[in-house]
Parts: sequence; structure tokens; C-alpha cells
Amino acid sequence: MLTYSFSDIGSESLYEYLYGCIKNDILSGKLRCGAKLPSKRTFAKNLGISTITIENAYALLISEGYVYSIPKKGYFVSDINISAQASPQRTEDENERREESFVADFAGNNTPHTLFPFATWAKLMRSVLSERQQELMIKSPGAGIAPLRSAIAEHLYQFRGMRVHPSQIIIGSGTEYLYGLIIQLLGSDKIFAVEDPGYNKIAKVYGANGVDYRYIPLDENGVAIEALRDSGAEILHISPSHHFPTGIVTPISRRYELLSWAAQSPKRFIIEDDYDSEFRLSGHPIPPLRSIDVTDKVIYMNTFSKSLASTIRISYMVLPRTLADKFYKALGFYSCTVSTFEQYTLAEFMNGGYFGNHINRIRRYYREERDELLKLIYSNKAFNGTEILEKDSGLHFLLRLDTELSDKALADSARRLGINISCLSEYYHNKSGAPEHTVVINYSGIEKEKIAGAVALLGKAIGGETERNEFC
Amino acid sequence: MLTYSFSDIGSESLYEYLYGCIKNDILSGKLRCGAKLPSKRTFAKNLGISTITIENAYALLISEGYVYSIPKKGYFVSDINISAQASPQRTEDENERREESFVADFAGNNTPHTLFPFATWAKLMRSVLSERQQELMIKSPGAGIAPLRSAIAEHLYQFRGMRVHPSQIIIGSGTEYLYGLIIQLLGSDKIFAVEDPGYNKIAKVYGANGVDYRYIPLDENGVAIEALRDSGAEILHISPSHHFPTGIVTPISRRYELLSWAAQSPKRFIIEDDYDSEFRLSGHPIPPLRSIDVTDKVIYMNTFSKSLASTIRISYMVLPRTLADKFYKALGFYSCTVSTFEQYTLAEFMNGGYFGNHINRIRRYYREERDELLKLIYSNKAFNGTEILEKDSGLHFLLRLDTELSDKALADSARRLGINISCLSEYYHNKSGAPEHTVVINYSGIEKEKIAGAVALLGKAIGGETERNEFC
Repeated sequence: MLTYSFSDIGSESLYEYLYGCIKNDILSGKLRCGAKLPSKRTFAKNLGISTITIENAYALLISEGYVYSIPKKGYFVSDINISAQASPQRTEDENERREESFVADFAGNNTPHTLFPFATWAKLMRSVLSERQQELMIKSPGAGIAPLRSAIAEHLYQFRGMRVHPSQIIIGSGTEYLYGLIIQLLGSDKIFAVEDPGYNKIAKVYGANGVDYRYIPLDENGVAIEALRDSGAEILHISPSHHFPTGIVTPISRRYELLSWAAQSPKRFIIEDDYDSEFRLSGHPIPPLRSIDVTDKVIYMNTFSKSLASTIRISYMVLPRTLADKFYKALGFYSCTVSTFEQYTLAEFMNGGYFGNHINRIRRYYREERDELLKLIYSNKAFNGTEILEKDSGLHFLLRLDTELSDKALADSARRLGINISCLSEYYHNKSGAPEHTVVINYSGIEKEKIAGAVALLGKAIGGETERNEFC
Repeated sequence: MLTYSFSDIGSESLYEYLYGCIKNDILSGKLRCGAKLPSKRTFAKNLGISTITIENAYALLISEGYVYSIPKKGYFVSDINISAQASPQRTEDENERREESFVADFAGNNTPHTLFPFATWAKLMRSVLSERQQELMIKSPGAGIAPLRSAIAEHLYQFRGMRVHPSQIIIGSGTEYLYGLIIQLLGSDKIFAVEDPGYNKIAKVYGANGVDYRYIPLDENGVAIEALRDSGAEILHISPSHHFPTGIVTPISRRYELLSWAAQSPKRFIIEDDYDSEFRLSGHPIPPLRSIDVTDKVIYMNTFSKSLASTIRISYMVLPRTLADKFYKALGFYSCTVSTFEQYTLAEFMNGGYFGNHINRIRRYYREERDELLKLIYSNKAFNGTEILEKDSGLHFLLRLDTELSDKALADSARRLGINISCLSEYYHNKSGAPEHTVVINYSGIEKEKIAGAVALLGKAIGGETERNEFC
């Protein structure tokens, strides 16, 4: 039975101290991989401390990957060699934590930490904390602080050719939060339309808010206009500059058809989700739908989660003037959901020119990474017969494989080798229209030095191999 | 006509440069208070730059209080002496900014900047940015990072005697955001009940989400139980530890009645908003309703906006186990709305013991401030006949004045003297039950050195005086 003495505990809390003791025993090898830890109740009784302290210590060990739990079985020591090499992706599933460790995750969107400008961010945060103490304590306007909204307006003008007034910009802690605000602004009695296939969180947000929504199929130019007309939908949610996951860029003729559809009723609006427009790797950037809209029908959305870090929760939308007026009247009472500390830091980051430099730097990084990925795929025999689609338009492309494996078998086989992938078919609501054997390669979360290994393992998965010395 | 040369512009953007030029002219007195600035179009034409640049420069000047705008009239130079001494409170009203400058704001909730532990926060933020770069880039679980949830569980145990598992804690960017999640969790078809009088943003959130809600009157022990039964409501939203604005503390007998009401139907739940429980200034802290609930019917909510800074957007709720399970199944797909940077910093702040110290420090500060306020009120003749209510329970108390003035006249008169106050009657939905002549004195946003002046001006307002040398 494990036992620890609390006699030399310093300023730490009890649970932190216990966490430290167990962690040290795991790192030193005293507690071996797979070893079962005592149950919370027994351990608490033995050590003479409260169960909640044990729970907290275990929770921290789980969150850092040292321990995993199996429902109704107990707590076990992880294989720390695997944890250390992989970037753990955690999900809370039915109140129990499930641990998944991948060598490379082509379906995630974590930002490699080497890409984030930590030194600059720390410098700006420090200067904001020392020089703007009074402003930091003044409640942000509901739509966000003026300097950040001005900086975004300037950025949209410079990078996207959009002329918008800062008062039309609403800042919030993530696009999912802003979708919720849009539902409140336009009314939950409206019928929304989402793309099929599409980024499936969008439909989930509408579903969770109890809103009626319809799936609109895509043709090769984006949302199929006849299907949209027939759907009865009033609000269309699209990503015309670079559709996820197909990569379709909606051409100008279809864009005008969409705007014309919206113009036919005062109730109709288009939500343009421009989530990765900064990352077009070749050719001219495509002007947003919003920039050719003279009827004030387009709600433009973008996020810093793609361009800066997925863990910085700052997104924004640009409202048509009529909706901006309505926003201030009906929803202006809401507090802004982004703290002033991060709003001011981001404003300085943009105004100081760091954001522009950062985008150029990571665009270069991703271009090199894509080129390397393509080279590796072309030169690997396992990919013979593979067609590569939509490789120029953003942070992901498609691999149409020449394989007998079902999508599920392929993904399972890759997962057993430590590679997380998603297939195009997963993003289809209407599965009958879904193409098989097409893998979505989202490389935004993968560090360059890992791609050679990742492509080799992916090649093995395509070949049907599933071996990996995964357990100790 | 104003003119500036852009020949020696450095690395600044054009609009920042222009902002700096105008600001300097205002500070040097070259542009005098009340002077009209050129229209955006004319100015842009004269300087040969784009209108958006002018707009951005003006927006920044407005946001910092140097300039104000009058709809359809134009832009004018502010009285910077007033701006400098007052803490500006800004609201976006119908797309135009309205400037309000108060000497003291008894209705706001900004945290005095002298109370925020900037040095500690900066130190922890720096260490997080240098030592946790990998963790900072890993997507937070939807409910928040484990170390912060463990720290909150520990805090709730230490300060509120509540035993909760970290997996029951959901972190979000503000309580208003969490109300929205609760609506999605319980269903927007449910009937909600709010307190009358009450913190009126709660009803606004339910209204904005299109949810059916009822006002329940209070008696001297809190929510009137008969009215609640008759209302048909299923979800009751209350603050039993310290009701805002009446200050009522719901006694134990009524608490059991409320829990018994909730137990009568599986659809019923109680939302307990414990927003300022850390600030009971005398006597024993009141245990939360959640801690005596054995039927798993109470959703407990609290926020760091009161205890740390109103501009740090971090709140949390503790879900009953059944609802926590439902949360992970139905809403687990949502990204956490608080950035990892602030989550890790706050976790370190709590685990390092700084939060406990901070609460003790500001509780002491506010106790002294309250004592000083009461002394000033007792010794000021203008307050003769005034009764002081609920002075022990939190960051506000009530003044029942002996006056002929209507609440509106009183508030207007105070505002003209530079003092923002709200009256108890403003928080009543059913105005027929609202007591007149009762002022809510919320002193959480006021610095100690301002209270003598503030009480003197408030005394003048009660006496019906309205003079103030407000304009230059």
C-alpha cells in the first residue's frame, strides 16, 4: 500500500503535495506503468485526509497524463514514454476522462507551440499590465474595446479589402459563442441552413440552441442554389472562401446568386465564416462575399483561433449596419466575453505590426510543411494511385486513395498506429452522397519534424498494417 | 482647418499617427474643449488619406475620452479635466457612443485598479508563458482545464464547505454565458422564474434567448413560496446568500421549502447565484443552498468578476451529477470560452494561495470603506432621518431616505453632480410593490479616497442641489 508523510509539507496545498509525491514515484519508476493506485476512499482513510484531496490529486495527475482511469475499475499509472512523445488530445466523455495519445493528429487543431510568438506576447502582456492598469479595470463595451475593434477594422481593410466601421465589429470568446449571439439577434424561430458536408460543430450549435436547421448539399461551386431555394431556410451559414472539408472556393457567379437569394426577403441573411482566409498558400486571395455585398445582407465572421492560437479565445463578427443597431438595442446589455487583459494585448499585437508579420511567418511555415508533406506522399509507394485535391487553398487538403479499405477500417488502422485522421465521409449528413476513401489531411496542428514519421505510419495504415509497440 | 504632415511617420500605422497628432494638440491646449473636429470626409480629402483612417483615429480618441461625438452634428473635443478625474463609464447606444463621466459611480461594478494584484498576476502570467508553452497550446477541455477545476473544487471546500468533484465544474467566460449554457442544457421550452426585484440582467438573458420566464415577488425571507408554486415555473434562479439589491438572506426554513419545491418534479431545478459570498463583512458566512441539497437539484454558480476583477471574464457553475453527465453528452462539443493563458494563470493564482490572501485583503479594504462611508453618512446633516439597511452582508447597502424627491428626480440630481446612483425601485418589475426613496449604495467600484467627496455630493443631491461647474 502506498503511503506518504505530510510532515514536511511546505506552502503547497495538501492535494498538490500528494500529486507531487505520486508524480515523483511514477517518474522514478517506483510506480510502474499499469500499476493500480489505491481507491480514493481507502487511500484517504490510510493517509488520514479527505477524499476530495485524493480526488483533486488524481484529477491533476490524469490531466497531466501520468494516470488514467477506467470506469468502475480504478486509477492506473500511464505509460509515460508514450505520453511524453505524443500530444495528448483529451475529451470528457460521460464524466470520465478518456486518454488518446497520437504521434500525429491530422484531425485536430492545436497550434504547434513553436509557432506561437511567446516572446512578443509576453513582452506586450507585461507592458499592458504595467502601463494600462486603469484601462484594464474599466468594463469593456459589450462589443469589445475600441482600440481592438479599430485594429480589426484596419486589418480587414489591409488584408481583405473590406471597409467596415469599428462599431459594426462585435468581439466574443470564440465563433461558437458568436453563433449563439446571432441566433438571439435574428431570432430562434428562423430557419437556418448549413452546408452538407460541413464543419459539423455548426449544426451542433444550432441543434443545441433548439433552432430549426436544414442541410444544403454542395455542388462543385458550393451551396446548391436550387436546394437552398427549396429548403425554406432564411439564414444561410457558409464558408465560401474555402469550404471545410472539401476545399471548394465558391466562384463569383455563385456568389452573386447567393446574394440575390438573400436580397429577395428582408428576413434573409448570409453568415460568411472566413475562418482560414489568411492561409491561402498560392494564387490571389479571394475577396470575401461581404466585400461585394451592397445590400447589407452578409454577417462576416473570423477568428484568431486559426491565425494566432486555437487556445486564445477571441473571434469577431462584422454586422450589417441594421443588425448592428439591433444588436446594441437588444443585446448591448451583455458583457463582452473576452477579458480586457487579452483584448488590450491583442490590440497592441495588431497595432504594433506583429500580427501581420506573424501571419507571413506561419504562412511560410505551412507552405514549407505542405510541400514537404506532398513530397513525402509522392515518394511513398503506399500512396500509389492516390489523387491529391485542393492543395493550394488553406491548411488542409484531401487524399483520394486507391484502396479497398472502408473509411472506418482505414481510420481505425491509422489510429492503432498512432495517427488520427478523419475521412471526408464523416462530414456528410446525407451519407448517400459521401465519397469513400478520401482522407482530410489537416496539417495545421502538426510540427514539421513529425511529418516524415506521420506519413510513413499513414502509409502503413493504407497498406493495412496495424502493428505498433504501444504498450509497455 | 486642421492639417498634419505624414512625412515623419515611423513604424506606426497611419491612423495611430493621426490619433497621436490630435491627442497632442488636445493635451497642449491647441485644440480647446468643445472645438469641433473636421468631418471625416473633409478631413480625409484634405489630408489625402482614406476616410477609414480618420474613422479609426476618431474611434480611438473617443474610446480614450479625448473626443466625443454627437449624432448628426459631428466630433468635438472633450473636457479633459473632467475625463481625467472621473472614471468613464461607456455604453454603446444605437451605434453611437455616449460619454458619461462620474466622480463616483455607486451603480457600476468596475474594480478599483489599486485593488487588483497586478504584480502577482504579472509574475504568474510570465511564468506560465515561459514554463507552460506546450500546455498553453493544447485545446482546453470544454469544461475548462483540470488544474483550474481542481483548484476551484478545493476553494469551494475551504471557503464554502462544498464537496464537489472537479468534473461537475464547468468554466465559462462570464455568468451570462453560463446562463445561456443552462438554457441549452435544460431546454428553452422550460419556464424559468426570476426574483422581483432582482439583478435585471438575468431576466434580459432569458428574454434574449426567447425563453418563457416569470417574475416571483419576494417577501422578507426571499422568494415567496406560494407565488412560486402558482407560477408554473420549473427552473428557479435565485441568490439566497445575499439577494441583490435588497440584501435579503434567505433563512434555513425557506431554503428547505425551496428544496422541497424542487424535489416535487424531476423537471425542477434551482440555479443558485452565489455572486458575492466571499464578501460577507460580519458574522458567519452563510452556507450555500447547494451544500444542504441532498437531492441533486441545485446548480451552483459563482464568478471571479466580483472577487478578482470585473474585467477578467471567468465564471463557473457546479452541476448536479445527472446534469453534468447530460452536459458532456449534449454540450461537450463546445470549446471552453476562456483562453488557456488565463485559465493556467488563475489556477496558479489559486494554488499558490494568492487568491485566499487577495480575498482577505479586499474584504478588509471594503470593510474599512463601508465603515468610512457609514461614518460620513451619519455625520452629514443632509442624511438626517435616513435609515441604513443590510449593511453587513456584501458590497452594497441601502439608504432609505427621508425625502420628498421622486427616485427619478433624485437620480437625475445626483447625476448632474457627477454621482451615479440607482434606486431600489429600478430593480422592480412590478412597480406597484416598489419602495420609493431607497438608494442602492454599491461601493465595490469606488476608491477609498473618493468617498468623502462622493458622500458630500450625494448629500447635496438629496438636498436638491444640482450645481456643478461641469463645462469648461
